[in-house]
Amino acid sequence: MLITSPANPRVKAIAGLRRRRVREQERRTVVEGRDELALALDAGVVPELLLLCPDLMADGVLADVLARAEALGVETVHASRAAFEKAAYREGPDGVLAVVPTLQRRPEELTLPDDALVLVCEGVEKPGNLGAMLRTADAAGVDAVVAADPVTDWGNPNTVRASKGTVFSVPVAAASAEATLAWLDGHGIPLVAATPDTATVHTDVDYRGPVAIAVGTESTGLTEALLERAAHRVRIPMAGRVNSLNVATSAAIIVYEAVRQRG
Amino acid sequence: MLITSPANPRVKAIAGLRRRRVREQERRTVVEGRDELALALDAGVVPELLLLCPDLMADGVLADVLARAEALGVETVHASRAAFEKAAYREGPDGVLAVVPTLQRRPEELTLPDDALVLVCEGVEKPGNLGAMLRTADAAGVDAVVAADPVTDWGNPNTVRASKGTVFSVPVAAASAEATLAWLDGHGIPLVAATPDTATVHTDVDYRGPVAIAVGTESTGLTEALLERAAHRVRIPMAGRVNSLNVATSAAIIVYEAVRQRG
Repeated sequence: MLITSPANPRVKAIAGLRRRRVREQERRTVVEGRDELALALDAGVVPELLLLCPDLMADGVLADVLARAEALGVETVHASRAAFEKAAYREGPDGVLAVVPTLQRRPEELTLPDDALVLVCEGVEKPGNLGAMLRTADAAGVDAVVAADPVTDWGNPNTVRASKGTVFSVPVAAASAEATLAWLDGHGIPLVAATPDTATVHTDVDYRGPVAIAVGTESTGLTEALLERAAHRVRIPMAGRVNSLNVATSAAIIVYEAVRQRG
Repeated sequence: MLITSPANPRVKAIAGLRRRRVREQERRTVVEGRDELALALDAGVVPELLLLCPDLMADGVLADVLARAEALGVETVHASRAAFEKAAYREGPDGVLAVVPTLQRRPEELTLPDDALVLVCEGVEKPGNLGAMLRTADAAGVDAVVAADPVTDWGNPNTVRASKGTVFSVPVAAASAEATLAWLDGHGIPLVAATPDTATVHTDVDYRGPVAIAVGTESTGLTEALLERAAHRVRIPMAGRVNSLNVATSAAIIVYEAVRQRG
């Protein structure tokens, strides 16, 4: 099948997934890019549909993608450049776009090892920061990333993109802050909360054994709900005048201190 | 003075600073935003001109900015919303824009302490990553950040913005990779090079005393020139399938390991 018109209903339906409400209603989202799709497939994601634009692809890509799609029994649809660019979210698309089931897990659906290392992101807004934290979680071997009271959903195409596909390889979930705390309590996982307002430095805490590391927004930090329930509040030492590391950077520094200790 | 027309020559001259060639020829760049300007002023930067749009400002901001400008003897020009938005680089400007001398230092112009902690960024392209590394450098108390063979200049308005103004508080310089290496040699500062292709983990190296930490681009990493001259090559342990932490994240993890050891 070849779609030539940007007004085609299927193209419009894909473009509609840019809206969070539509993603949540339909429980699906979009993965763009060959590399991101490969990571999603490696993680066991089965797309509902592949939209392909041979005109935008480098040599050899089409045959490779088609072979993988056929092996999984995924429907493929070809699109003209105009139609594809209407469906695509990113600028400079590479001709590969997949519609995939969204990742609306709740924390209870995740399976954790005994010594789980968990990252909790409360209220984080920017898809780029969420994506960067997922790349860190993937690299560090974090067992679960939970968005508490999320402003941005895991299916946001910019999050998927910024994560380089790790949103599919890292176990992610979303819940209210209260439900996240109850879930951690149920698993006996102590919380380490990042905040500038404490004397304890992040390297002074023992991260061996099960532990959850929580970061909040850059503007307001973690809410009292999480700070009050934390076993430890830690700060990253800051010498400078700007009291704000990037939130994804802060998460990475603390997560990798945990990795060092757990080594 | 009030500028009402977007076609005003001074507005056009400011808009022209979006181009690197113009910034380098004129040795000036643009700082946008009240918070970023405050950081620049705190760091001793004296603007050549302030362009202000009262219509875009929150209450109280104008009087505050005008007071600081007067204390420094800086020329201020008011602009209509249309004229200001023509001059402004960012979307959703807050009505404060300054033209400042650019930061074209060479490494030789920097003053270093005996136990200098230096960050070298080779070939980094994305202003967002350069800005994030500057925020980290500011927080970690890094003594100098040197862009080796830079693709993006420190005066890039997106770098200035992403740095939250720390481009003015952190000593920054730019030079060829060769000149950067010669400068490090001259100061007896050993180089620790980040690369995935080594057995040594970043926490296995001693960062006490003078040390320079080097990171390359996300796509190709550091060049052979830097890798060959490194005292240590280190990798950040990665459990995941995506062999690429964000470059600013990698820099932060290694820099903060140095901070921990130097503690």
